[in-house]
Amino acid sequence: MSFETLYADRTRAIKHSDVARIFAIIEKGDVISLAGGLPDPNLLYVTEIQEVAAKVLREIPEQALQYCPTPGLTQFREFVAQRAGERSVLAGVENTIITGGALQAFDYLCRLLLEPGDEVITEAPTYLAIIHTVKTYSGYTTGVPMDEHGMRTDLLAQILSDRREAGKMPKFIYVIPNFHNPTGLTLAAERRSELVRLGAEYGVPIIEDDAYGELQLEGEPQPLLKSLDETGGVIFLGTFSKIFCPGVRLGWMIAEPELVQKMILVKQANDQCPNSMGQKMIQEFGEKGLLAKQIIKIRHGLGRRRLVMQEALQKFFPPGTQWTNPQGGYFTWATLPGAVDTEELLPTAVDQWRAAYVPGCCFFPDRSGPNTLRLSYSLATEEAIQEGISRLGEMFGNHLAQVG
Amino acid sequence: MSFETLYADRTRAIKHSDVARIFAIIEKGDVISLAGGLPDPNLLYVTEIQEVAAKVLREIPEQALQYCPTPGLTQFREFVAQRAGERSVLAGVENTIITGGALQAFDYLCRLLLEPGDEVITEAPTYLAIIHTVKTYSGYTTGVPMDEHGMRTDLLAQILSDRREAGKMPKFIYVIPNFHNPTGLTLAAERRSELVRLGAEYGVPIIEDDAYGELQLEGEPQPLLKSLDETGGVIFLGTFSKIFCPGVRLGWMIAEPELVQKMILVKQANDQCPNSMGQKMIQEFGEKGLLAKQIIKIRHGLGRRRLVMQEALQKFFPPGTQWTNPQGGYFTWATLPGAVDTEELLPTAVDQWRAAYVPGCCFFPDRSGPNTLRLSYSLATEEAIQEGISRLGEMFGNHLAQVG
Repeated sequence: MSFETLYADRTRAIKHSDVARIFAIIEKGDVISLAGGLPDPNLLYVTEIQEVAAKVLREIPEQALQYCPTPGLTQFREFVAQRAGERSVLAGVENTIITGGALQAFDYLCRLLLEPGDEVITEAPTYLAIIHTVKTYSGYTTGVPMDEHGMRTDLLAQILSDRREAGKMPKFIYVIPNFHNPTGLTLAAERRSELVRLGAEYGVPIIEDDAYGELQLEGEPQPLLKSLDETGGVIFLGTFSKIFCPGVRLGWMIAEPELVQKMILVKQANDQCPNSMGQKMIQEFGEKGLLAKQIIKIRHGLGRRRLVMQEALQKFFPPGTQWTNPQGGYFTWATLPGAVDTEELLPTAVDQWRAAYVPGCCFFPDRSGPNTLRLSYSLATEEAIQEGISRLGEMFGNHLAQVG
Repeated sequence: MSFETLYADRTRAIKHSDVARIFAIIEKGDVISLAGGLPDPNLLYVTEIQEVAAKVLREIPEQALQYCPTPGLTQFREFVAQRAGERSVLAGVENTIITGGALQAFDYLCRLLLEPGDEVITEAPTYLAIIHTVKTYSGYTTGVPMDEHGMRTDLLAQILSDRREAGKMPKFIYVIPNFHNPTGLTLAAERRSELVRLGAEYGVPIIEDDAYGELQLEGEPQPLLKSLDETGGVIFLGTFSKIFCPGVRLGWMIAEPELVQKMILVKQANDQCPNSMGQKMIQEFGEKGLLAKQIIKIRHGLGRRRLVMQEALQKFFPPGTQWTNPQGGYFTWATLPGAVDTEELLPTAVDQWRAAYVPGCCFFPDRSGPNTLRLSYSLATEEAIQEGISRLGEMFGNHLAQVG
């Protein structure tokens, strides 16, 4: 039986993605990968994670092994809401739903909100999974350019004003204000207030993805958009993948109770409930103070690698290259001078130079930015980062010398 | 900000469900619940589960705590495919995707296949989450009546013929051939062949949900529909919730590679990948022979409870009541004589008699079957089953005496 004629329209629009193709190129042995956004298990308190796993299975197997309520265990929702409270987000259990990661919450929001042809506003560049997810609902993504202070809210204001005039508003705005994926940039304080104000003025919800927010490596934390929200228009997403581990698939949404109730109905239709064992493990880990300790350990490790990468970029990348100086998170974003197509060069980088990155065009809704690339310092060792940047710098330098 | 005006059409159609309302009635303390379809942690090898958790976290934390490929760990997909092979389903890694339970696979299939207004054929009654999930895609469910041999394939043939004449085929057929939820019935062998033949003849895929198939309590196993499938039209879904535990949220789909590839794209957009730690735990558990041992323990426990329930129904339920004699799984289905509305009586059952069931109407697309109910023997102890059935029998008896 061929399924080709049976697919829904939304499905025909999603083909085997470029991203899958690129990751197939990257995933070869003996390559220094600065591509993926994976956390480093060496920065986790593995022994202590073993201990909490043993404890919850010993003491409360009837909860850890069982189904839990669709929005998550009530105690765990409290735990998540309380952690948000420590960052000035006022939330209770009724505002909180546990999901299989922040992306799952985003997907559920698309399912609740998007009609075919709806527009979603993001930063340009943005997290590549977001572009893909919106497409699977037959929506489309418009990117707002960024500068060193994050999304250009003046340009956003112009877009919103244009859309009001045209009579069709974007369905929502998706942003990563802290240590943005892929650029590592932080949205400036005054732009945060302006963004929240614009969302409220135009009646457009703002989805704040804070995947990296607790991994501040230098400078002072900026306020969460959700902490500035007076109308309920900001939807706060987070994940335990970067502060506990991705293996248990747990994240959350904090939003208006009305939206939480709707999302429960979607989650009931999808996977019924989040991983109980993981929730119990994280709560135990948190209550022992280990989550806070682990975050410090991760920050310390990332902080050193970030420095190594900055120094290596300075030393090895061609003169005229620009790169961001992230205050936290996993990523640096580089812009090469002159005529370079980082997507075209990727196979050479992997096959001949044994080093990998993600071409910048993957992160732009319109696949622009041919001379940009994302470099991750989350998983590779300090030595590997230095060696990888050195190889890539030489490759790009050679290439520019040839084309220049 | 009110989201009411922002929701997609599909979202407006899903209101706070009756099911949620019913479970809110049921979930009171000090009630003997024969309602939920929860496994009993007392029938699990909890110590051994602790041991495999400790082992995978000690030996391979870099895999157990990390993201895994979207379709699951390759070794685990092999493990699942091989287990299907033991039941005469020929499948390899390319046919297999790991999901967050069988329902998640079903939801992804709806997302891939359903357009608004599409029809899905199910047994009547059917698993209530299926009715809900189809609704969230603005589809609708048509139920085919069952008798003691399962779905009436003669009636299905008539429906398919009618639809062909009308020029719009159902998008797929969803069935639970083994120890059906909610009736406990098993689809007869000759109807299995006929069902697979009809699907192929009319070009309508068949989704086979085998959630309970490995929990055979008496009699001989019938062939899986997938093992009879020669055209690739049968999509086989399974779950580890009933044979390992639900807490880790793991299930699978086995189908044509083309469909697996499409589902990978949807899973990338939803939760990226399944729980790595759970996959590693189950594989370790399986390779030690513990999964097979645990299935035997679960069968033994369920077998005794099933008998207790059958005897209690005989002893305590009003004369003229009919009930199914399940050969496996979790559920018995009772049909009361005369004018009883089991939904209307549920609050009385819970508040006055301290015993709970699920009203049969929840499982019918058209909410028919007022005098039917589902009784689960999966979680309650033998004593509780006997006492619960005794209380419910007395209540229904009193009610029938009054209205009769």
